[in-house]
Amino acid sequence: MAKDTQNTDAVGFGTQIRKSPYFDATMRWGAAGYSVYNHMYIPRDFGDPVQNFWNLVNDAILCDVAVERQVEITGPDASRFVQMLSPRDISKCAVGQCKYVILTNEKGGVLNDPVMLRLGENHFWFSLADSDILFWAQGVAVNAGMDVTITEPDVSPLQLQGPRSGEIAHALFGDVVSDLRYYWLAELEFEGIPLVVSRTGWSSELGYEIYLRDGSKGDQLWEAIMKAGAPFGLKPGHTSSIRRIEGGMLSYHADMDINTNPFELGLDRLIDLDMDADFIGKAALTKIRQHGVTRKQVGLVIDGAPLAASNTTFWPVESDGKVIGKVTSAIYSPRLEQNIALAMLDIAYADNGTQAFAETSVGRLPVTVVPKPFYDPKKQLASS
Amino acid sequence: MAKDTQNTDAVGFGTQIRKSPYFDATMRWGAAGYSVYNHMYIPRDFGDPVQNFWNLVNDAILCDVAVERQVEITGPDASRFVQMLSPRDISKCAVGQCKYVILTNEKGGVLNDPVMLRLGENHFWFSLADSDILFWAQGVAVNAGMDVTITEPDVSPLQLQGPRSGEIAHALFGDVVSDLRYYWLAELEFEGIPLVVSRTGWSSELGYEIYLRDGSKGDQLWEAIMKAGAPFGLKPGHTSSIRRIEGGMLSYHADMDINTNPFELGLDRLIDLDMDADFIGKAALTKIRQHGVTRKQVGLVIDGAPLAASNTTFWPVESDGKVIGKVTSAIYSPRLEQNIALAMLDIAYADNGTQAFAETSVGRLPVTVVPKPFYDPKKQLASS
Repeated sequence: MAKDTQNTDAVGFGTQIRKSPYFDATMRWGAAGYSVYNHMYIPRDFGDPVQNFWNLVNDAILCDVAVERQVEITGPDASRFVQMLSPRDISKCAVGQCKYVILTNEKGGVLNDPVMLRLGENHFWFSLADSDILFWAQGVAVNAGMDVTITEPDVSPLQLQGPRSGEIAHALFGDVVSDLRYYWLAELEFEGIPLVVSRTGWSSELGYEIYLRDGSKGDQLWEAIMKAGAPFGLKPGHTSSIRRIEGGMLSYHADMDINTNPFELGLDRLIDLDMDADFIGKAALTKIRQHGVTRKQVGLVIDGAPLAASNTTFWPVESDGKVIGKVTSAIYSPRLEQNIALAMLDIAYADNGTQAFAETSVGRLPVTVVPKPFYDPKKQLASS
Repeated sequence: MAKDTQNTDAVGFGTQIRKSPYFDATMRWGAAGYSVYNHMYIPRDFGDPVQNFWNLVNDAILCDVAVERQVEITGPDASRFVQMLSPRDISKCAVGQCKYVILTNEKGGVLNDPVMLRLGENHFWFSLADSDILFWAQGVAVNAGMDVTITEPDVSPLQLQGPRSGEIAHALFGDVVSDLRYYWLAELEFEGIPLVVSRTGWSSELGYEIYLRDGSKGDQLWEAIMKAGAPFGLKPGHTSSIRRIEGGMLSYHADMDINTNPFELGLDRLIDLDMDADFIGKAALTKIRQHGVTRKQVGLVIDGAPLAASNTTFWPVESDGKVIGKVTSAIYSPRLEQNIALAMLDIAYADNGTQAFAETSVGRLPVTVVPKPFYDPKKQLASS
């Protein structure tokens, strides 16, 4: 086995890291391994990550993503304050709608890539990736001169994802959810449990996020969904690295961090530089756009035998006798029958078709730059 | 085995969580388990936590605490800015000195309890507990109107702790370190490796923190210290829950969080409310001090058989037919031959000698409120 994967490493549980409302349920349903994200345990293994992938793309999986903590922003100046944090034009986000947002600091560095949910004119949630945006937002508010309240509410999401998720959502919640348009939300009650449901997720499949608004009901909600989903093949699962890399979806800290800007990541469409409204990072990002980026995030195909595991370090990419970048996320896709990866490369090497070498955990392997996403359902259908 | 402890849970490694510069070394030296803290892996197990405790209190241990990320604040207004963040009077912190600081938000809630190191008139490090103070500080700076630079430097600490640590520090670094007064620091080079060393730590033992300022030298530094320490019985180890609870030392997220204020925690001495300088949270903390606290952090002794493991959830504490608080950190001390704990209780039940019950993972057990710390070396000597 490759050196990177040869250890079984136990995370002992303790109160320094929180348990989600679904923790006991995931244990009962076979969770074999947990990681930590936003100071909370998240199941990352139900025994076989490849089986988890097939469950997701063929049927549906239910994933405990309570670690997607919310930052709730309310108050008379909430929408003005949220615009100040957001490079996206939030006036384009209606009440009941969601937007994928890149949050940047004054240097244009990425702090988080949350989904923003607009529950009201002045009522927002940022559904977070792995960093303390509560602290960022509270810090910004200190001298902002705005009347806002910024807290972490008792909200714990689940992801219900996969082609059969619509049928399961309908069985549970009815039309109000199964009729949702992509990136819209509904507020509802289910068996007396207050919920928000959005048509969002981290899989590029049809899917929903179910936000539990009462942490004491985690067990009840989980069991109800698994029961309703049983006839449709619903399995307990975890967010699939295979599927999200196939879809070119980014993981904060892995593929981007405070030292990357959105333009290097190819996320230009999420930065409304030309809108009138100001936002934190606007000046820096304007300069970056003027000067152009010096590196770019790309897709790679990696030659060689199927990778036994995802990379556990950044793998240097080399060409012309020098390091030209790094592989950030790599995995074997059993569907594409290829090793696929996301990488950050010097701009001169970022064009499709460029060839180079990666220093991987299993040796030096040839790589080729390819377009993302790696898997496009429409193309697959056209060629079949 | 109690339900809380019956799982071996694997944290698979990946690039979404960082590896410390000492990661490979700790693997080689027998690390059996890792947790996650400030988005980085930290070794939490070298096979036997009780043996680790005895190694610490009898000889010395070397611990990878690179997860104590630094927030570096420099610039012409650095000291003004740092004072704004700090409830402690930083004018009392000389260049070369360190202070234990509680960072609070506008509501007086605790954000982190770092050690602050003053490297220069306008050069500070906050050596962090587990939360993104970089984001807090950068957020505060947005509208502060001050000329400061706030970054995470390439700095990765080790803890060298235990009664023999002074001899080991002298063997490695000479008088400049072994002569350090408590909570003072030195900057030095060792085998060409740039370091800061402070006489601080999280063990209540004699000890040092060694801040590596070049992440490529982690392996070299670790090996050099283990070699120099071998004649003194130095072992690889991890921060000891047994020792820190004996010492009444607090763990952020476990014993305190954003919803606790420093007065409830008994940390009044760290809040200079009466100084002229303003700081974030001053108004709220002034009110809290006027009104008095409604709950208080206490030490508990828990009756019954030695706890097989630390608590993995907060254990309710009950008296008079109602819940009066919670156990935050509990463990069996093999030295005191007692189950000891930290708990947050309603003020009416916080006096020494109060008796109550805790609903633990092994059933309902009697508890008694006792003074902290649980272990006082001076008293032990006096009674022996």
